[in-house]
Amino acid sequence: MPNRTVFFVSDQTGVTAETMGHSLLTQFAGLKLSTVTLPFIASREKAIEARERINAATVADGAQSIVFSTLIQEEWRVEVQAANAVFLDFFDAFIGQLEAAFGVKSSHAAGRAHGMANAEGYAARINATNFALSNDDGAQTRDFGKADVILVGVSRSGKTPTCLYLALHYGIHAANYPLTEEDLETGRLPAVLAPLRAKLYGLTIEPDRLQQIRHERRPNSKYASANQVAFEVREARALFERLGIPYIDTTHCSVEEIGSRVVHESGIGRRTVA
Amino acid sequence: MPNRTVFFVSDQTGVTAETMGHSLLTQFAGLKLSTVTLPFIASREKAIEARERINAATVADGAQSIVFSTLIQEEWRVEVQAANAVFLDFFDAFIGQLEAAFGVKSSHAAGRAHGMANAEGYAARINATNFALSNDDGAQTRDFGKADVILVGVSRSGKTPTCLYLALHYGIHAANYPLTEEDLETGRLPAVLAPLRAKLYGLTIEPDRLQQIRHERRPNSKYASANQVAFEVREARALFERLGIPYIDTTHCSVEEIGSRVVHESGIGRRTVA
Repeated sequence: MPNRTVFFVSDQTGVTAETMGHSLLTQFAGLKLSTVTLPFIASREKAIEARERINAATVADGAQSIVFSTLIQEEWRVEVQAANAVFLDFFDAFIGQLEAAFGVKSSHAAGRAHGMANAEGYAARINATNFALSNDDGAQTRDFGKADVILVGVSRSGKTPTCLYLALHYGIHAANYPLTEEDLETGRLPAVLAPLRAKLYGLTIEPDRLQQIRHERRPNSKYASANQVAFEVREARALFERLGIPYIDTTHCSVEEIGSRVVHESGIGRRTVA
Repeated sequence: MPNRTVFFVSDQTGVTAETMGHSLLTQFAGLKLSTVTLPFIASREKAIEARERINAATVADGAQSIVFSTLIQEEWRVEVQAANAVFLDFFDAFIGQLEAAFGVKSSHAAGRAHGMANAEGYAARINATNFALSNDDGAQTRDFGKADVILVGVSRSGKTPTCLYLALHYGIHAANYPLTEEDLETGRLPAVLAPLRAKLYGLTIEPDRLQQIRHERRPNSKYASANQVAFEVREARALFERLGIPYIDTTHCSVEEIGSRVVHESGIGRRTVA
C-alpha cells in the first residue's frame, strides 16, 4: 500500500482543519498516512507554495494527497484547490445550508474560530487557567469557594491535566484536591471540602493502571505498591458512593472525555468555547 | 430576529462537533444563537431524548434548530436526523469522498478522535503537561535541556497558558522563563539560557495591554506602571532582535494562534495530536 500524505490547510491556526481531518481519519484504520499542517495560508504566495508542496507529495507518494481545507478566502482557496489532490472543503460543504437556514449570506471573512474574536471568552479562559494553577493539588484552598468544580481523587488519577483542560477549553474554574491516605483512613471528607460537597466531582482509576503510573514516578515505593494503590482506590470510590459524589473512571478516558463528562454531568455549564 | 438554537450532537465528547460548528458560525455575525452540546449520544434512548430536545427548541424559538452532528452509528443518527431541524452531517459530507480516495470502506465505528485510541500519543500529552508544570516560570531549570522549546518573555506575556496548550494539544515539552528587570538590565541572556539559544522562542506584547493585565493583578504597583512596562517590553524585544530569537506579539493572539505559530515556525514539529 502506498503512503498517502494528508494536508491540513488553513488561513488561520489549522486547529479546525486538524480536528476535522483526524476525526474522519479515525474511520480508516490501517492506512499508511503522513500528515502535514499548513497554517496561516493568507496570501497568494503562501497559497501557491502550499499547492506546490501538495503536488510534490502526490508525485512522491504516487497517489493523490488528501487536503482538508478550512480556507475561507476564495482567492487563496482556488490556488490550493488547483493542486493534484483530493480536496475536502469544509466551508463549501456546509456554508450553503447555513446561509439558507439563516436567510443571510456568510461574511466570508477569514475565520478566527481559534482567535480572539470573542475577547471576553478568551480572557475567561486565561483567568480560568491561572485559577487552575493556583488551586492545584490542595496546596492552597482558600479560593475553593470560587471554583465551579473541585475534582477529588487519589494521587495520579488525572486531576491536574483535567483541570487545565477544563480551564483552557471551557473557561471553567476547576480546583483539585488529592485524597491522601490520611484522608481515606478517616472515611470522611477533608474538613476543607465538607461544606463544598455540591462542587465535588470524583476521579477514579483502575488499580493496575495507577500502579503503573506511580511506579514510573517513584519506582518500588510504598506509594506505588499494589497494597497501597488498592487501598486508596477502594476507599476513594467507597467515599464517593457513600456521599453521592458523581465520579468517573479515568483509566480509558482522555482529558477531553473526562472534561466533557464533568461539564455535562455536573451541570456546571461551560463558560465559553475554545 | 428570532433566537435560534444550535445543537452539537456526538456519540463521543462533542469536541469535533463544537469545533466544526463554531468555526462555521464565525461566518455569521449578529445572529441571536444559543448553543447546546449533547455528547455521548450512544443509545436509542439517548438519541430519542436528543431529538425531543431539538424539537422542543424548534417550537420554542419558532424557527428550526441547527444541528451539527458527528454521530457515526447509523441507528442513532437516523433517530436524531428525524428531528424538525437543519441537520448538518459531518461524516456524511466527507466520508464518501474519502472512501473513494482510499479505495476502502470506512469502519463506521464510533469515532474516538478525542479518545485514547492512540494511547502512546495520549501518554505523551500527559507527560508533556507534567513537564510544563515542573518547568514553569523559571523556578526550576535543570530539565530545560530536555525541552522541545523554551518560551521567554516578560511577566504576563502569555508564557504559561501557551506552554500548557502546547503540552495538552501537541504533546510538546515546553518550558518557560520570565525575563526579569535584572535580566533585561544586563542586556544579555540569563546564564541558564545562554547554551539553549536554539530552543528559545520569544513572546512579546503591547505595553498598553500588558499594563492593563498587570494592573488587574497588582493595582498601582511599580510592576504595573507605564514606565516599568515600557522598559521591559522594549528591552525584551531588543534582546530577541539582537540574538535572532524568533518571537511573536501575543497582544491579539489566542493561545491556539500562539501555539500554532510556535510549532510551525520553530520547526520543532509536533509530538502528537489532540
